[in-house]
Amino acid sequence: MSGDEVNPAAVAKPVEDAQGDDRWMSQHIRFVQECKDAEPDVLFVGDSMIQLMKQYEVWRELFSPLHALNFGIGGDNTCNVLWRLQNGELDNIRPKVVVLWVGTNNHQHTAEQVAGGVHAIAQLLTSRLPKAKIVVLGLLPRGERPNPLREKNATVNEILCDSLPRLGRAQLLDVSREFVHSDGAISPQDMFDFLHLTPTGYRTLSKPLSDLLLQILEEKPGERRAPLV
Amino acid sequence: MSGDEVNPAAVAKPVEDAQGDDRWMSQHIRFVQECKDAEPDVLFVGDSMIQLMKQYEVWRELFSPLHALNFGIGGDNTCNVLWRLQNGELDNIRPKVVVLWVGTNNHQHTAEQVAGGVHAIAQLLTSRLPKAKIVVLGLLPRGERPNPLREKNATVNEILCDSLPRLGRAQLLDVSREFVHSDGAISPQDMFDFLHLTPTGYRTLSKPLSDLLLQILEEKPGERRAPLV
Repeated sequence: MSGDEVNPAAVAKPVEDAQGDDRWMSQHIRFVQECKDAEPDVLFVGDSMIQLMKQYEVWRELFSPLHALNFGIGGDNTCNVLWRLQNGELDNIRPKVVVLWVGTNNHQHTAEQVAGGVHAIAQLLTSRLPKAKIVVLGLLPRGERPNPLREKNATVNEILCDSLPRLGRAQLLDVSREFVHSDGAISPQDMFDFLHLTPTGYRTLSKPLSDLLLQILEEKPGERRAPLV
Repeated sequence: MSGDEVNPAAVAKPVEDAQGDDRWMSQHIRFVQECKDAEPDVLFVGDSMIQLMKQYEVWRELFSPLHALNFGIGGDNTCNVLWRLQNGELDNIRPKVVVLWVGTNNHQHTAEQVAGGVHAIAQLLTSRLPKAKIVVLGLLPRGERPNPLREKNATVNEILCDSLPRLGRAQLLDVSREFVHSDGAISPQDMFDFLHLTPTGYRTLSKPLSDLLLQILEEKPGERRAPLV
């Protein structure tokens, strides 16, 4: 993309309530409310991959004790997360670290656009939170067998690996290789629908993520605090 | 609907791979394969509400010991489940009970059509499995506040409550009232995105469901067998 073009994956956009139960906006409003009540050290933000993490034991065990909030909404793409962060989900909080995981739902965008969208969110975070570190989780492979979406997600990770360090306080954590077996297949033991992680799959991701967060927060595993919520 | 009209919610239809990773078909093929390897006493079939249940402790604790298979696929509507059951997911198995939970994703259909679609699946199950009992789970309310989709789901349950007993071996288990507080709100403690259940929400559903399954299987809680998978 040349500098003059607008990247459609970096345009802030709410999800319209096409179905009629207003679930997306309800979740956003709940997150904005949580910003008024909690003082998180770690903010997790993204799509269903972030959201589901909170439903499993690994959240209570490894992340909740770090004073973490979880602002994941299923189905979100980069545009939706950008909109949420520009519309109240960063007000009144000053987390020390933000974990950002989004992009696999950007079906209408190219790898370059998706990476640009993630980069734009990371940029917003560094500008709104001048002291925070940003950990971007690399997109995971998806589909039982090799397919174009896996290739796109891998390209997104490559671009982000190059571009994020330029922001100074942002880095990529890419564990995508852990999920592809030697025959190219993804196991339902790791991803129950060949996209979303099982508790086992979250374990694989969470150990390196937890280690990195503890390192950034300069805490030892024994020093954990009581959870926020 | 008059008898001459075709109910669009009762037309068998696979999910097309619009995104490019073929996840839906991969899951269906895996289920067909499981039919060749396992001899389930209980079959769970439906959408993400069924699928996510397997990721939580409640599955291992209450349902897996009943020799249960889980054929849930996120996003499925009545047409998709009908197609799956007509295309291999009932071959080679003879479960004693089928738990069916689908319909909340039938966004383009009326309550009458959705109930007709669920009824058609229950009818297929009774005809393909001449000795099995069918437990249809009532659709749950959705959205944080009262909204048209909640009303539609409630109407679907009312129709099914009347129509299912006519099939002889089918019944509705409706726990939808448990999820709406006195002010009309649904709690994120029960449904993390105001649609999908948390582990706490699954507990509320699972106790009456487990009791009913044990009664049908004529087992006492202490008599549970080793899980299938």
